[in-house]
Amino acid sequence: MDFKTVAAKRRAVNFFDEQKEVSDTLLREMVEIAAKTPSSFNLQPWNLMVLKDADAKGRLRKLAWDQPKVTEAPVVLIVLADKSGWKEGHATVEKNWKEMIAAGSMTAEQREWFLNAAKSLYGWSDDASLAFAAKNTGFFAMSLMYAATSLGLSTHPMDGFDHEGVRKEFNIPDNYWVPLLLAVGYLKPGVEVNPPKWRKSYDELVVSF
Amino acid sequence: MDFKTVAAKRRAVNFFDEQKEVSDTLLREMVEIAAKTPSSFNLQPWNLMVLKDADAKGRLRKLAWDQPKVTEAPVVLIVLADKSGWKEGHATVEKNWKEMIAAGSMTAEQREWFLNAAKSLYGWSDDASLAFAAKNTGFFAMSLMYAATSLGLSTHPMDGFDHEGVRKEFNIPDNYWVPLLLAVGYLKPGVEVNPPKWRKSYDELVVSF
Repeated sequence: MDFKTVAAKRRAVNFFDEQKEVSDTLLREMVEIAAKTPSSFNLQPWNLMVLKDADAKGRLRKLAWDQPKVTEAPVVLIVLADKSGWKEGHATVEKNWKEMIAAGSMTAEQREWFLNAAKSLYGWSDDASLAFAAKNTGFFAMSLMYAATSLGLSTHPMDGFDHEGVRKEFNIPDNYWVPLLLAVGYLKPGVEVNPPKWRKSYDELVVSF
Repeated sequence: MDFKTVAAKRRAVNFFDEQKEVSDTLLREMVEIAAKTPSSFNLQPWNLMVLKDADAKGRLRKLAWDQPKVTEAPVVLIVLADKSGWKEGHATVEKNWKEMIAAGSMTAEQREWFLNAAKSLYGWSDDASLAFAAKNTGFFAMSLMYAATSLGLSTHPMDGFDHEGVRKEFNIPDNYWVPLLLAVGYLKPGVEVNPPKWRKSYDELVVSF
């Protein structure tokens, strides 16, 4: 399926087949395709919580406007954006650093430059840290949706939830913002997806000041 | 090219062919494929500034760590995330509303519900408005990169710039955050792209608390 087709075929699905599981193998394949997503300095400031069991999805549904798809989809991902994912000492920052040294794309002498660059770009304000996390995690979530589509899966990105309530209920640490929930599964048989919604044209997208 | 191939082929390119323009037709096609990107309530809180002329790219380069690719790439997009893109009266919010009414996906009686839902999700704090803008624009920017790859173009998403300086120099209104610049063009002949960088595995991505 070429990308233009994937982009057109990806639709936010409201009704999932409750009888059809997403296998661990397929979920892993979907996530691993999306893991190739680019990020600021390769910092990959994102994580996932994978909810499959009825109890966890039920607790989430109560905090997500009681949307039936939260429990009907076989898998719901809580997508996490790590606001601290640029800081010295952070596990991913340090692993990324080691991997860059090993690959020869950075030298040990560049460590101060690297850490200061990230700090100057993402640590100059709380806004900058949040935007860094949300933007990059947006990249990743978009890739997850395309990867799912290309594998025959359907998704629905959800914003309709109590942000602070979800953080509390699922013990999500303070360094994370929760930019979305992502329902993953198969379209319910017999359901037709709505026609595509309006989108801005090129001329509506491009601005000058 | 299937999506898995597009995801693997998309690489941040450092050296662009200065002799090879991106035609208006191709740029438009790339943007229009990406325009199918999903967004919160279909609000599409993103815009683009398209920089092609040497003077504009030169002014941007000065504010972007003097990175040569800013002037070498034939097109540089300033990607804009609209923090106010959920508010009543906003042109896109109102157009989206009219289109939903016309399509029958909303009824006139649901207007208050719709506006209040968006306000409760994106207006409860400045953080929520920024995260809404940055997350959704992250979706769009990721789609732009995949669309470009699928059309034979190369890109480079850039964070290395003076955020406030760019806003001032290009008269970008206060309602926008600038999550990234995106260089678009063709890989310089004779240049080899670096091997792919390390990425988190599934087991590193998935967390529980």
